Amino acid sequence: MSQQAANGVPHRGKVLTLDSMNPNVKRVEYAVRGPIVQRAVQIEKELKEGVKKPFTEVIKANIGDAHAMGQKPITFLRQVLALCSYPELLEDNKFPEDAKQRAQRILDACGGHSIGAYSASQGIECIRQDVARYIEKRDGGIPSNPDNIYLSTGASDAIVTMLKLLVRGEGRDRTGVMISIPQYPLYSAAVADLGAVQVSYYLDEDKCWSLDVTEVRRALNEARQHCNPRVLCIINPGNPTGQVQSRQCIEDVIKFAKEEHLFLMADEVYQDNVYAEGCKFHSFKKVLFEMGPEYSSTLEMASFHSTSKCYMGECGFRGGYMEVINMDPEVKAQLTKLVSVRLCPPVPGQALLDLVVNPPLPDEPSYTTFMKERSAVLAALAEKARLTEQIFNTVPGITCNPVQGAMYTFPRITLPQKAIDKAKEEGTVPDMLYCMRLLEEEGICLVPGSGFGQREGTFHFRMTILPPTEKLKVVLEKISHFHQRFTKEFS
Amino acid sequence: MSQQAANGVPHRGKVLTLDSMNPNVKRVEYAVRGPIVQRAVQIEKELKEGVKKPFTEVIKANIGDAHAMGQKPITFLRQVLALCSYPELLEDNKFPEDAKQRAQRILDACGGHSIGAYSASQGIECIRQDVARYIEKRDGGIPSNPDNIYLSTGASDAIVTMLKLLVRGEGRDRTGVMISIPQYPLYSAAVADLGAVQVSYYLDEDKCWSLDVTEVRRALNEARQHCNPRVLCIINPGNPTGQVQSRQCIEDVIKFAKEEHLFLMADEVYQDNVYAEGCKFHSFKKVLFEMGPEYSSTLEMASFHSTSKCYMGECGFRGGYMEVINMDPEVKAQLTKLVSVRLCPPVPGQALLDLVVNPPLPDEPSYTTFMKERSAVLAALAEKARLTEQIFNTVPGITCNPVQGAMYTFPRITLPQKAIDKAKEEGTVPDMLYCMRLLEEEGICLVPGSGFGQREGTFHFRMTILPPTEKLKVVLEKISHFHQRFTKEFS
Ligand SMILES: Cc1ncc(COP(=O)(O)O)c(C=O)c1O
Ligand SMILES: Cc1ncc(COP(=O)(O)O)c(C=O)c1O
Repeated sequence: MSQQAANGVPHRGKVLTLDSMNPNVKRVEYAVRGPIVQRAVQIEKELKEGVKKPFTEVIKANIGDAHAMGQKPITFLRQVLALCSYPELLEDNKFPEDAKQRAQRILDACGGHSIGAYSASQGIECIRQDVARYIEKRDGGIPSNPDNIYLSTGASDAIVTMLKLLVRGEGRDRTGVMISIPQYPLYSAAVADLGAVQVSYYLDEDKCWSLDVTEVRRALNEARQHCNPRVLCIINPGNPTGQVQSRQCIEDVIKFAKEEHLFLMADEVYQDNVYAEGCKFHSFKKVLFEMGPEYSSTLEMASFHSTSKCYMGECGFRGGYMEVINMDPEVKAQLTKLVSVRLCPPVPGQALLDLVVNPPLPDEPSYTTFMKERSAVLAALAEKARLTEQIFNTVPGITCNPVQGAMYTFPRITLPQKAIDKAKEEGTVPDMLYCMRLLEEEGICLVPGSGFGQREGTFHFRMTILPPTEKLKVVLEKISHFHQRFTKEFS
Repeated sequence: MSQQAANGVPHRGKVLTLDSMNPNVKRVEYAVRGPIVQRAVQIEKELKEGVKKPFTEVIKANIGDAHAMGQKPITFLRQVLALCSYPELLEDNKFPEDAKQRAQRILDACGGHSIGAYSASQGIECIRQDVARYIEKRDGGIPSNPDNIYLSTGASDAIVTMLKLLVRGEGRDRTGVMISIPQYPLYSAAVADLGAVQVSYYLDEDKCWSLDVTEVRRALNEARQHCNPRVLCIINPGNPTGQVQSRQCIEDVIKFAKEEHLFLMADEVYQDNVYAEGCKFHSFKKVLFEMGPEYSSTLEMASFHSTSKCYMGECGFRGGYMEVINMDPEVKAQLTKLVSVRLCPPVPGQALLDLVVNPPLPDEPSYTTFMKERSAVLAALAEKARLTEQIFNTVPGITCNPVQGAMYTFPRITLPQKAIDKAKEEGTVPDMLYCMRLLEEEGICLVPGSGFGQREGTFHFRMTILPPTEKLKVVLEKISHFHQRFTKEFS
């Protein structure tokens, strides 16, 4: 560590270096905001500075960020948020009565009637009650206890917190966390950060990215040789893969988790994003309770939801919740203590979540507009899901499963051997080379499949279907042409 | 783990139990929201249900939450937030032009012009620029680079993230984190959670809670026997102790940190909260740069700020930032990657921070009202700081240092031996017994000194000075009477 400085006096290097920092943090990877996105931001700056490019704007289809792609906020949600921010507006006739009532109710539940006060660490009580009622309605009356609801700073926060509770042990006793491949990289990042062991099970691309318990069992048995798998994470509807799991599959997973003594984490942030005919969202909790007390009174699980997705797409507010089921009361007390260290989730995000779980009712003045706006977003997404599959599947070398739900397509791309060799030569991976070239040539920012995991020797990219329909068409066309050009160049 | 169930079939216990959970989480303690606060919430419910008590409301003086204590939000801040939430209001003549301009500028910096879009993980660029300019102005022109600014979810988030980067090692090589005693328990909680070693140095109560480098050196040398101390954390102005460190002290700390090769973490969330004659806030960064390049080009540090304190007290928005200085560029890249996993800090909190660092200028329409509101809050706090010291010091058995800054008093209380014995008998600590009794008898919620750390054999409590002046007087009187009653009872 001692170095010779210019003046001849020996000095020590920095306290904090790549060598001396937390090694778990070094292992963290998060492709959704990785090097390709950094380059996209750079290109945007270059464009602003007048640098000539073969395109005039960068289209960031790398992240599920609806507003950034031009989706307008839902009026009712924003009216209530404005009222909560500046309660003087409650005197204003421009705002509908139901918006005012909602705002007043939220303010009354805040310390000093201000969203600027810290809330209870678990979240504002009346909002947790509203969440519980929402879940009960969603699941056909299966009871939900507000004490089991924890509001969070986006779903990300709750997912990391839940994993943190579960992770322990050294060597062969280290906690194994089972995650799908492909996966949303928050999971692999959190597992690395916490020093746990990632246990990968593969989704079946040939069967529309469905989950087969046989494969999960294979992964579990292998993992038991070297770690202690205790958690099974499922994302449904799927990111990056866009599938919606069948009721049967969910039942199989629950049986498996019970048999194998696993804690289940169900990431259901896309629960309103189901588009394909014949597909339906089944919550893990509902299926669990329908399977009878043998399951519903024993299986430990947590389910996650967020204000960032669905029809509202309010990512910036960082709202979300988790519901825990069958959690040991002593562990719950530990969870409550743990979340209190960071004081509370952002209160505007909590307020927003309250509106999402408690939207205008048919007899309220905001109902018609709210439903119109909501339906328009969901209908447009369904149309874009269809369009994406259709156009990609016309391109030789691109194979694309139906986008049954969520906000992404994860098509498989066939890459020429020369491109694979070229990537190796450049010290990168083939799908990264592909996506970088696409960015430089067309201004379209995607995430390489390697950022989510994929079967050895296969290549993919993830694209959101969020751009407005007309722009999405252009993007799909550009990618199709690029793919053909790229294939030709390396053939 | 195998148990016999009622039906005679052997079954396994829960996956996640107190025994099988993350042991670091179990070690976490956070008194500010601990058992006494849980009891306070319970009592509030009992009061609502009509249960008779010797008081009619619970006064929660346990947490630095200005709005919860009745402080009104600053008009300008909330106007801009309402405009950002519901941009249709930009057409409204009721809002001053400068508020509209600020809102428009923030919206223009958001994806899709919406605060509902995810921002860059490090925070919105133009807000980071505003933060840098604010720091430059605060520090008399010493340059600040927006690339060194990371916006955060309250200061809590940034502090935990910074500690996470620094923590590593096993056994004698485990990272030691030096924190003051008394301390704000976020630090001890984060250290426990990360599996690091807490290295305690004591503030000097007899010298108004000042920091003496001799004591820090003692603690360091002892710690080096069993761990690897790499970080020195300072809170200035102090929580829970309310002291404002002198310029000389800060210089001494910087010299010490450089000599001993420590990373410095300066928690400066109370930088606007200085009340005592002759006291002034000196930022660590300013002093560092005034000490010349020998220090300013080598010492690695991070400084933290928040929207939760000062005159605005906007805790619920979870806004904040950290500035890193002399951080290794490779480590900075790792930091940027790490924060990207949680996507971004809440955008409303970022917007709020922007207004705090970029308030109305003298020639702008909102200036007069803004300054009036701001000064009123700070003047009231100064008055309450004085009052608190004065009244407590009239009570035999309570000794109270001047509240030079921040929002708390941490008076020392003399407890009779019988009370100490009684606490032991009940399996609790004496200051917890004291505070619980105060809560049950007077409805006043304080935090026992043991929650922050104190010298063996001494007892304290922490109280915020935030209640409105008239209510504060009542609280001070009630505590004074209670103290005398308690002392008599146990004598
Ligand atoms: C599957 C899944 N889970 C969780 C999240 C986290 O979202 P947030 O933290 O914004 O709620 C995302 C975001 O894209 C996601 O796709
Ligand atoms: C010294 C100190 N640092 C940090 C914080 C965290 O505040 P926040 O996360 O609300 O910014 C607090 C809150 O009381 C504090 O007193």
